[in-house]
Amino acid sequence: MRVRFEVLQGEFERVLIKKGLTAELARVNATLFAQNSLDGIYSHGLNRFPRVMDYIDKGYIQVNAVAERDDGFGALERWNGNMGMGPSNARRCMGRAVELAGQYGIGCVALHHTNHWMRGGAYGLHAADLGCVGICMTNTSPNMPAWGGLDNRIGNNPFIVAIPRADGLHFMLDMAVSQYAYGTVEKAMRDGKMLPVPGGYDKDGNITSDPKLLWESRRVLPVGFWKGSCMSMVFDLLAAGLSNGNTVQDIGKIGTEIACSQLFIAISPAKCGDPGFMRQITDSTIEHIKASTPESEGGNIYYPNEISYITRADNLENGIPVDEEFWAMVQAM
Amino acid sequence: MRVRFEVLQGEFERVLIKKGLTAELARVNATLFAQNSLDGIYSHGLNRFPRVMDYIDKGYIQVNAVAERDDGFGALERWNGNMGMGPSNARRCMGRAVELAGQYGIGCVALHHTNHWMRGGAYGLHAADLGCVGICMTNTSPNMPAWGGLDNRIGNNPFIVAIPRADGLHFMLDMAVSQYAYGTVEKAMRDGKMLPVPGGYDKDGNITSDPKLLWESRRVLPVGFWKGSCMSMVFDLLAAGLSNGNTVQDIGKIGTEIACSQLFIAISPAKCGDPGFMRQITDSTIEHIKASTPESEGGNIYYPNEISYITRADNLENGIPVDEEFWAMVQAM
Repeated sequence: MRVRFEVLQGEFERVLIKKGLTAELARVNATLFAQNSLDGIYSHGLNRFPRVMDYIDKGYIQVNAVAERDDGFGALERWNGNMGMGPSNARRCMGRAVELAGQYGIGCVALHHTNHWMRGGAYGLHAADLGCVGICMTNTSPNMPAWGGLDNRIGNNPFIVAIPRADGLHFMLDMAVSQYAYGTVEKAMRDGKMLPVPGGYDKDGNITSDPKLLWESRRVLPVGFWKGSCMSMVFDLLAAGLSNGNTVQDIGKIGTEIACSQLFIAISPAKCGDPGFMRQITDSTIEHIKASTPESEGGNIYYPNEISYITRADNLENGIPVDEEFWAMVQAM
Repeated sequence: MRVRFEVLQGEFERVLIKKGLTAELARVNATLFAQNSLDGIYSHGLNRFPRVMDYIDKGYIQVNAVAERDDGFGALERWNGNMGMGPSNARRCMGRAVELAGQYGIGCVALHHTNHWMRGGAYGLHAADLGCVGICMTNTSPNMPAWGGLDNRIGNNPFIVAIPRADGLHFMLDMAVSQYAYGTVEKAMRDGKMLPVPGGYDKDGNITSDPKLLWESRRVLPVGFWKGSCMSMVFDLLAAGLSNGNTVQDIGKIGTEIACSQLFIAISPAKCGDPGFMRQITDSTIEHIKASTPESEGGNIYYPNEISYITRADNLENGIPVDEEFWAMVQAM
């Protein structure tokens, strides 16, 4: 079943208003959830929406709280998310980082006590739409072991870098520092498929691509083994340290993935050097990468986030494929 | 054979002066090369020194050129490396980013037409010694295939994030975005050992930990497969785009790893929020990670860059282990 973007967005908006959000906050958050599904990030669009509504019902999320500036010094600011909606808080803080970049060339906003931002790429794209490089990161619950350890003490802390392009199809890295999300592992397990590359260790410490063994062991792999383990920790310390917010360890003590810390950096290439240069080399890099000798005959090489734009175009034309169970849940709310 | 830090540094300084560097530039660069060996990064200390001297002899490096400011806007500046020595240029630009962070909370310096910085971590540590978070990245020659491709079109573009600690033993990620450096692959091959985790693909496209097969195929693996491939490209575009410098593609056309682009960001945690907070959560995170259940009984969990400090303490006490061939080459220069 496929549902038009406007219909999905409208339903989210209706439910959010029913949950008590102001019209403005309902619109911003509904749009972000619907855009995530539109771009093919279903796990952080429709499929996650019911859980977020549950968090509102449980009082984990303060529906009308918005992020506010605690203090700042020049291009660096510290904001309090006040436990409000993660997507609108994150969008506001990246918007503020872009304003600071307009004033200082670069701007940095550290945000504490906010909630899950859903798809981090949404804020990278927001900065890029405003002509800036967008860099952001968030911490999470502890969901991976540190390298050399067995118990989950580090987060898969997503990291985003977006480079603006003239046509709006921005060049964007949007990655968690685990090789796979548990959602991907679960899906492969249900589909009875092996993961395309090793995703972690089984209970006996053997590296494996078998999602069933990973689901049992809960030992998913950081990207690049010890390297991703270190990435996870520095991203946590950057976001929590600069915002004076919760670390992954603190979120683990809460026991639910709420009250996170995030960092937003925007850089304005127009403020320094040739403003067209970055766009030109981005296009030239895309062309160069795509001209690689493909691994398999006729194979395509995609630039970062390209597949999401292909999905977006398809979903705009043909409607967004929805998981009927989740869609029915939202319609019944 | 082990050689004292001061002896190594003195020899480097002597040779650099003979090559025509000013006393000041010789001192700065000799110290950086010697510190890299001191910290156990032999590949970018003594072992790389002869190749850099060869690049000077060939005229690739302008011995007395220094980095100069092209232009800037607030906290964002663009510098020209003037094809000077990579280590002193990089140190100067991170120092400038720290000055900007003192003025604006965050500072960013993009550097073009510089040369190989040796160990990127040296500049992260420099920022951290000055009380700042240090983030930096460089581009390189094309030395990996993009994800889905077979020919080398992306760089292993190192990425560094350093978090300052009170005792000077800073928490630092210092990683190339390839799983292994070719130097590591070569060493394992010579030692007749398998790599501890898969490092790339053999000629037939099978994933392998066999260094001999990797050496033949030249298909090393980005960290996290497709994720590291995307990281490589965004780091290249950030460094080259903001500095208006060469991309990995451009360096490939030169054919030698010179005239690189680099980016240096410093953030001053003291300018925003509780200045002691970041140090406190860093220490607490280290303690928490080290208390993990170890993978193997009695196993240690290290924090990022800790092993390098253990090596440093040993090398300060007992002298730096030197490759006798390289050491003899330097002494004969």
